Amino acid sequence: MKLDQIETPALVVDEKAFKANLVSMQKLLEGRTLKLRPHYKSNKCAAIAHMQMACGAIGITCAKLSEAEDLADSGIEDILIANQIVDPDKIVRAALLAKKCRLTVCVDSAENARALSAAAISAGADIRCYVEYDIGMRRCGVETEEEFLELAGLVESLPCLEFAGIQAYAGHVSHMASEAERRSYTEANRRKILHLKEELEAKGFRDLAVSGGSTGTSIIKAEEGLYTELQAGSYIFLAATYGGLEKLPFVNSLYVLATVVSRREGVVILDAGVKSMGMDQGDPRILTMDGRTVTGRIEVNEEHLKLYDPAVEGGPVGLELEPGERVLIIPGHCCSTINLYDKLYMFSDGQVTDRLQITARGCSR
Amino acid sequence: MKLDQIETPALVVDEKAFKANLVSMQKLLEGRTLKLRPHYKSNKCAAIAHMQMACGAIGITCAKLSEAEDLADSGIEDILIANQIVDPDKIVRAALLAKKCRLTVCVDSAENARALSAAAISAGADIRCYVEYDIGMRRCGVETEEEFLELAGLVESLPCLEFAGIQAYAGHVSHMASEAERRSYTEANRRKILHLKEELEAKGFRDLAVSGGSTGTSIIKAEEGLYTELQAGSYIFLAATYGGLEKLPFVNSLYVLATVVSRREGVVILDAGVKSMGMDQGDPRILTMDGRTVTGRIEVNEEHLKLYDPAVEGGPVGLELEPGERVLIIPGHCCSTINLYDKLYMFSDGQVTDRLQITARGCSR
Repeated sequence: MKLDQIETPALVVDEKAFKANLVSMQKLLEGRTLKLRPHYKSNKCAAIAHMQMACGAIGITCAKLSEAEDLADSGIEDILIANQIVDPDKIVRAALLAKKCRLTVCVDSAENARALSAAAISAGADIRCYVEYDIGMRRCGVETEEEFLELAGLVESLPCLEFAGIQAYAGHVSHMASEAERRSYTEANRRKILHLKEELEAKGFRDLAVSGGSTGTSIIKAEEGLYTELQAGSYIFLAATYGGLEKLPFVNSLYVLATVVSRREGVVILDAGVKSMGMDQGDPRILTMDGRTVTGRIEVNEEHLKLYDPAVEGGPVGLELEPGERVLIIPGHCCSTINLYDKLYMFSDGQVTDRLQITARGCSR
Repeated sequence: MKLDQIETPALVVDEKAFKANLVSMQKLLEGRTLKLRPHYKSNKCAAIAHMQMACGAIGITCAKLSEAEDLADSGIEDILIANQIVDPDKIVRAALLAKKCRLTVCVDSAENARALSAAAISAGADIRCYVEYDIGMRRCGVETEEEFLELAGLVESLPCLEFAGIQAYAGHVSHMASEAERRSYTEANRRKILHLKEELEAKGFRDLAVSGGSTGTSIIKAEEGLYTELQAGSYIFLAATYGGLEKLPFVNSLYVLATVVSRREGVVILDAGVKSMGMDQGDPRILTMDGRTVTGRIEVNEEHLKLYDPAVEGGPVGLELEPGERVLIIPGHCCSTINLYDKLYMFSDGQVTDRLQITARGCSR
């Protein structure tokens, strides 16, 4: 089947670009302290997690317990839930899951650590814990070194829990467009975490993981030699927002295939809207099927994308798109786009080469 | 099961409020020219479509062919696809669908009408067509009365097609907060459509449907007596954006049930983010389980909602939410929220009363 025979809107992935990204990440981390623990939230596709493991990942990161269950069910054996599990029923399920895989969860409170320990005892499981350290995102995590050391000591003392590392994620840094700015913030955080690590080592903690980072900070994290696990997810797809970042060794591989459904003076209408692409990190970019960028103001409705002809609005060239024609949309954000689809199509040279199930689509629990 | 025993995030619907909305719409349209053809895009749930039919709907409106297929498969017999079907394969499928139900589609070009006719002939089906008339939204639809009359004549002349009405939807008017503003725009459109209808009647077209409108314009459309079909969808749920509109006889019934996963100085973190609520029409509102409004600045991340304590930011009262506690989130937009879930829970007086499958979730094709 040819790419343009897929019914639209559809999520399609350029296999060569996708595989080049897998290799680029492998090369970036070659010989480094930093190992890859890619984030499942960006692809939610068990087949892709297994490809990442085959390309050197030491395990998979995910956001939610239901994603972790999907991963374990597909045979992934080392899983980090990079969030707090606080619901009592979910804590019991996490303990059950820890019997099927090497499970690590993040904690930021003593009460939560005690609940996890109690559930692990009941289940006969061992749960690894990273204590989350807030490095400026003001989301979850303990705020001071003192709190961290106290909680780490508690976790280590509780039955069936192991204090295994530091979770420190600065999501607000990942999307800073300038590499210099990303470097400056990252350096400040590096010193903070380094000091904490020395304090932990002074207390006898050894071989601790330092886990975090993202696609946007991957080069910096690889070079600085402090972090041991990189939680990058978007690198395999990139998407429009990350595509605007400087110096990343990755290329866009993800598109929403769409069809022109109507055309009129000054406006072309596509059949893909906010129900078909994640709009939480800005506008998409539009390409023709032969790869030319389509310029023009974009307005995204629920099931439509309106593309205003730049010629009509004073621009230099007009749109050449006709009803029935297919286009490739680079969505603003890969993670929220993936979550809208049940499957993605791999393509190469205009031919469909595979179809993968997005096994954890909708797994927000 | 109690409401707060549902695992979060979850989509939950207050059954009494939901049923009150069904009744309010029935009352609003009692004795009117305007009949209800509710939009499926807002609920994507076959069971709800059947409830709407039981409450007087004359048929269902939907946005996509795949939604129409889901509706027909569930036994709905009168379906309007309020969009253009232009893909050749989809046109063939639409013709096949027209053998299973009374199917109406929208057209805005002669080429598309000819393709629909050819497919209908091949399939041995009859397809009803509304010609779409652009009344200011600048999306699909013909722009002038002359174009409309010409296309209507062509549709009527083509084998296996029937020109059955006027599709005229002004989505940009529906969300104008002031009722006076909505009335003023609606009046201008009314005159335009009325003139077109008279022209069509002069050409011998009788019993034409005039289809469009939405929750936001439902009262106006009921009173003016021109439209015959109201395509309102959100009225059953409302959600935060519509909840801000003046004079609507509907109440909010839709919530995302979420859990507080972390709390720190000045910030409370919930376990629901952009993957759990549609953010395309503005911020959600937060309520405690006993219905008190939680004030505070909101920031929505991918899987988290950060709620800043107004007391810390200079406000009068602090947040009282603790980790593990449940809250009810009124999402900004019901339609894009529904599309993120596979099921919704009905509840009444804090007890779960039913669970409905969102059968057309993800049906954007």
